[in-house]
Amino acid sequence: MQKNFKERLKDVEAFVFDVDGVLTDGAIIPIGDDFLRRYYAKDGYAMAYAIRHGYKICIISGGFGKNLESRLKRLHIEYVYLNCMDKIAAIEEFAQKAEVNLHNTIYMGDDIPDLECMQRVGLPTAPADACIEAIEASVFVSEYNGGAGAVRDIIEQVLRVHGTWAVDKKGVIPDDSKEVASR
Amino acid sequence: MQKNFKERLKDVEAFVFDVDGVLTDGAIIPIGDDFLRRYYAKDGYAMAYAIRHGYKICIISGGFGKNLESRLKRLHIEYVYLNCMDKIAAIEEFAQKAEVNLHNTIYMGDDIPDLECMQRVGLPTAPADACIEAIEASVFVSEYNGGAGAVRDIIEQVLRVHGTWAVDKKGVIPDDSKEVASR
Amino acid sequence: MQKNFKERLKDVEAFVFDVDGVLTDGAIIPIGDDFLRRYYAKDGYAMAYAIRHGYKICIISGGFGKNLESRLKRLHIEYVYLNCMDKIAAIEEFAQKAEVNLHNTIYMGDDIPDLECMQRVGLPTAPADACIEAIEASVFVSEYNGGAGAVRDIIEQVLRVHGTWAVDKKGVIPDDSKEVASR
Amino acid sequence: MQKNFKERLKDVEAFVFDVDGVLTDGAIIPIGDDFLRRYYAKDGYAMAYAIRHGYKICIISGGFGKNLESRLKRLHIEYVYLNCMDKIAAIEEFAQKAEVNLHNTIYMGDDIPDLECMQRVGLPTAPADACIEAIEASVFVSEYNGGAGAVRDIIEQVLRVHGTWAVDKKGVIPDDSKEVASR
Repeated sequence: MQKNFKERLKDVEAFVFDVDGVLTDGAIIPIGDDFLRRYYAKDGYAMAYAIRHGYKICIISGGFGKNLESRLKRLHIEYVYLNCMDKIAAIEEFAQKAEVNLHNTIYMGDDIPDLECMQRVGLPTAPADACIEAIEASVFVSEYNGGAGAVRDIIEQVLRVHGTWAVDKKGVIPDDSKEVASR
Repeated sequence: MQKNFKERLKDVEAFVFDVDGVLTDGAIIPIGDDFLRRYYAKDGYAMAYAIRHGYKICIISGGFGKNLESRLKRLHIEYVYLNCMDKIAAIEEFAQKAEVNLHNTIYMGDDIPDLECMQRVGLPTAPADACIEAIEASVFVSEYNGGAGAVRDIIEQVLRVHGTWAVDKKGVIPDDSKEVASR
Repeated sequence: MQKNFKERLKDVEAFVFDVDGVLTDGAIIPIGDDFLRRYYAKDGYAMAYAIRHGYKICIISGGFGKNLESRLKRLHIEYVYLNCMDKIAAIEEFAQKAEVNLHNTIYMGDDIPDLECMQRVGLPTAPADACIEAIEASVFVSEYNGGAGAVRDIIEQVLRVHGTWAVDKKGVIPDDSKEVASR
Repeated sequence: MQKNFKERLKDVEAFVFDVDGVLTDGAIIPIGDDFLRRYYAKDGYAMAYAIRHGYKICIISGGFGKNLESRLKRLHIEYVYLNCMDKIAAIEEFAQKAEVNLHNTIYMGDDIPDLECMQRVGLPTAPADACIEAIEASVFVSEYNGGAGAVRDIIEQVLRVHGTWAVDKKGVIPDDSKEVASR
């Protein structure tokens, strides 16, 4: 008998996220030869928390830029594929390197270039404001938009099922490159 | 007998877009001697996709700035008129250079300076949050706001009618100026 | 007999606007020793258009910064008081220099420091998201928020009453400091 | 007999705020080795006003960056703990240094790392878009989101109860580092 979505969450060991429209609200703000993107603090907290509790997180995106790389580095995300025109090759490499079963992997995507990866994993998901093709390809659609809690939502759901959410309450993204500022 | 909007979409070969309020949400964020503008990843994907599938795209805007130029270059848009105070002259030149029939051209505009071009093309359109004059001049008003899917919406509609939407699923805006970042 | 709001619009010859929360959505984004602020293209079009048609526009703000000054310069606004801690002194000076009657002047403000000027002019107004004190001090509250059309709304209303709105359709903020970019 | 929320506001002498999601809308925008954050002018006005009227304000955040420090300096906030991984130690130090009773202190937080401080103070509060754990830990949840009036809301409520809100109408954040710009 087929497991339902909630039951399948129990087996999740890894998350793969697109960037624009998933980790961000889809805004692209060119500045010089780079871009500004708007991430969401609550998503970042959840990703760093999940990594600290042993989950594998991978980012696969056609996007690129130093500011994007810097964001992912801060969150201590180990598996990162940017400026990526072959997302399937990337996700396969991730699965091999990180030793995760893609059947037990959540992918969250919001647009056409995400569709192939969404068919490849066991648990394709999408933010509320994903394109119609991504919505239709999903086993779960968050009630939150990209860059506004969709990533937090799916991470929280998995960790709650595992009983690992909010068991420690410390901040998880210290800046080790700078002194503590206080006055 | 007059064709309806859906039927006329079949003949579309070109798109002309204003920038502020159409490709963006209308936000102007001055920085130094330039500006930041907020574009939308899903709009950008649709424009690059359409160009790759043979459609002509032209940008005509009173706006200007290096950051704006950089955005349009990334999307490989060939026909660009910025800091433009005579939009009619620009659209006529585009039609001649690109060999497109303005009767089969979609223009999307959101404010008074767009009205003349909207009267000149066969298919004037507007985002949901366009000014009342632009709304009234349109044969189709998107349910999406500028910078939030209006451009994606009209491109998708044309390409769906032509059966060319989402037939390939690759990303379409590789950054050829940089190496692929992965770790 | 007292004139109603619509009738009083006929006598308007000048507009005074606060910046944060009126010309912008209230967002303050520190960057280095300056700030980014989010203006709205349709507001800017209306202000430049009004100035070109002979209306006086004055900006009085406690805010400051090079990026703010640059925005106001682009719009060709002649009367500007920034980093202003005495708004009453500023508005009196404006009235004298520009030879306008404050009884026939619209002031749009959104917060406590605007209240004195709102009591001083004949036509105090506020964006929809102004603080309660500014709402209560207003003879007209726009249905639009600050930085999202409130300024456009009040300018349009005055110019429509005067029959001067949208009589010309050209863009009105050319960048005379740069060459026209086209390709 | 237990005092209700309104009655307890009378005893408030200090406010402690988190940054991301409380003073801001949760947006994190990496730029170079720093971040842009979006603050709200009406919140800033209220904080500077409260300080000028004798209230103690403390900021405790896991966040960091020069642009953040610059914002807090402008508002003349005296007690600041950034890049903070031990919020309890910080709030205890604040209480001692500023000689405030944490029982009469409002804390506003929006995420898991705020929970310990919320249990420590007499009046834990949260913005409307806080995470569920922060909502549940609060004695009062603002109807406003973080970065969009939640901070203004709670400060206004306390100062109204004390009769100190809007008794003076001047701007309160002059830029003493620059000359007044006017033309």
